[in-house]
Amino acid sequence: MIYFDNAATGGFKVHAAISAAESVIKFLSANPGRSAHRLAATGAKIVAECREVLASGFYADPSRVIFTKNCTEALNTALFGLPLSGKVITTVAEHNSVLRPLYKLEKEGKITLDILPIKNIVATLKGSDLKGVSAIITTAVSNVSGESLAVTEIGEIAKENGIYFIVDGAQGGGHIPLSVKGQNISCLTLAGHKGLGGIMGSGALIIGDGVELSPLTYGGTGIDTFNTDMPENLPEKLEAGTLNLPAIASLLEGARFTFKNLNNFANTLEFYTERMIKGLSNIPKVKLYSAPNPAGIVAFSIDGITSMEGADILNNDYDVAVRGGYHCAPLMHKYLGTEKEGLLRASLSVQNSASEIDYFIKAVGKMCR
Amino acid sequence: MIYFDNAATGGFKVHAAISAAESVIKFLSANPGRSAHRLAATGAKIVAECREVLASGFYADPSRVIFTKNCTEALNTALFGLPLSGKVITTVAEHNSVLRPLYKLEKEGKITLDILPIKNIVATLKGSDLKGVSAIITTAVSNVSGESLAVTEIGEIAKENGIYFIVDGAQGGGHIPLSVKGQNISCLTLAGHKGLGGIMGSGALIIGDGVELSPLTYGGTGIDTFNTDMPENLPEKLEAGTLNLPAIASLLEGARFTFKNLNNFANTLEFYTERMIKGLSNIPKVKLYSAPNPAGIVAFSIDGITSMEGADILNNDYDVAVRGGYHCAPLMHKYLGTEKEGLLRASLSVQNSASEIDYFIKAVGKMCR
Repeated sequence: MIYFDNAATGGFKVHAAISAAESVIKFLSANPGRSAHRLAATGAKIVAECREVLASGFYADPSRVIFTKNCTEALNTALFGLPLSGKVITTVAEHNSVLRPLYKLEKEGKITLDILPIKNIVATLKGSDLKGVSAIITTAVSNVSGESLAVTEIGEIAKENGIYFIVDGAQGGGHIPLSVKGQNISCLTLAGHKGLGGIMGSGALIIGDGVELSPLTYGGTGIDTFNTDMPENLPEKLEAGTLNLPAIASLLEGARFTFKNLNNFANTLEFYTERMIKGLSNIPKVKLYSAPNPAGIVAFSIDGITSMEGADILNNDYDVAVRGGYHCAPLMHKYLGTEKEGLLRASLSVQNSASEIDYFIKAVGKMCR
Repeated sequence: MIYFDNAATGGFKVHAAISAAESVIKFLSANPGRSAHRLAATGAKIVAECREVLASGFYADPSRVIFTKNCTEALNTALFGLPLSGKVITTVAEHNSVLRPLYKLEKEGKITLDILPIKNIVATLKGSDLKGVSAIITTAVSNVSGESLAVTEIGEIAKENGIYFIVDGAQGGGHIPLSVKGQNISCLTLAGHKGLGGIMGSGALIIGDGVELSPLTYGGTGIDTFNTDMPENLPEKLEAGTLNLPAIASLLEGARFTFKNLNNFANTLEFYTERMIKGLSNIPKVKLYSAPNPAGIVAFSIDGITSMEGADILNNDYDVAVRGGYHCAPLMHKYLGTEKEGLLRASLSVQNSASEIDYFIKAVGKMCR
């Protein structure tokens, strides 16, 4: 099978990331940060090391790297944990993991939402009265089209106005450079199993200096047992219960490898998406919704075939895995005018090859005949 | 190393549980329940099968099996998701993953807490006026001493009084029989990586018929994308974001094996704990806090050595992994009078052997000389 669904879960894991998970599963089934014996201490060391690698790659403090089960939990921790109030600004490019927590806050009367189109968003923000705005939340990269948003410029606006700035790095993390300190990010949320090259089961929330959050979940922390509240210290305050050591061990190796190769990987995916877009653009019935991008995403529609049908045909007749439908990003489809039939999304990794792309272009061409 | 820390994380995983995780990590890095292609569909099938195995083992409806990252998240989902109000009854045997969410609700003025000693708890409940009580929450097995609580009897009282009954099965699950339908349980919470034999990274919340919960987290569900709220259907309503497929695949095999051998395993652990308790009881400085039990837990203190020192000596001088300290259960230590120095906890699995137990008894004997 040709796997072009890397934006859902990365198919490419470097060998070290796979074998790190396997080693933990086989030889290190002990709870990091609970007991003090040799196995538990080794687990705790892996967790600490992963915090350091993420902190170094995303320019933050290691103790402010919080492990979660996925990016959704990281976003919920950020959006329900920050003292949001008044107006909150977000974009049409957001995933339901951003929108649904925000809608919930809006329904409870805690915030009012202002959802901006992504075109000229920086100019829109600069021209807006930001008084009474408590936060701006944006994805770094659209999971539908692969388009990058102007994180640096939006971060400057947020800083100037003393506003929280939350960045959903689910698709951007590991594909484009992101810096908590350099881009004035209050909360950066990440998926461990996409661009960062870990197995499923990890996410992270990286918190900017001076930003305080209430916990989303309460429970055992291995320290401060007689405290009826969560401990005040990070990361313990926001990490209740057993951490997922196999996934964190894998993320450690995946992230290390990804940061080392960030530019190469970005160039490769720009090249791949350009090649795919060029090829698909020669097929009359195809309409493209992506420009070449370092996230490896190519969104398109086929005249007369819904996106779900198209994905099924590619799966059944050509053994190619792509995703059809809405990709959990409802407003992006309204914005693009694709809310009826969704979009086909081919999402590539550096493990894919030019010949797979060429095969794919031919397959889509045949489907369109 | 002799691993006697199975109550923190089970050291024993059946081969099928390890190889299921490995297969997913190597060959099935696709997102279950999102895309529709072959790999994603295979992942979704594994998830569905695991729901069925847990539902069958704990006597519940498969669609009411919710996957979480650990038992703590399952407990938070239950305790914050149920409409708790008025008085809530719980026990001194609870873990901080029960107590801290309840304290949080109490601080917010939503409930008042009544925390009962576990001795004669059924009689205490029968003698109490339960008007204005919205829920009873109890662990099935103390994670400190291994003592079982009278889940069946408490469930009957809860049913008679129309009260929610939440059971923390973190330590009980996979060791003693538990039945959502048979014991009138509203919410049963489980850890995948302890008695149920999966790798770290999974937990479950099993919800009784007719019980309704609000979500703890909001996000993508792969279905119902244009709904601004979470879908109404279970399990999707309570499962936002990417599921941990390697851990769920492993839990499927671990749980299947565990249910098949539940009685044998319980007998073995009763035998092991009895042997350890008998041996330790001959050492004058040792004070025991456990009776033989199917959860495999033996808690004890050594006169003149704190529990943390004792755990360190066993680790450093004898290469035995046990846990010292408080095991995240503060009130149990107040109840047992061990809040100053904590307790040593040896927690066994069926993989351990009688000769390991005998070696351990000798090691403790030497420490006490």
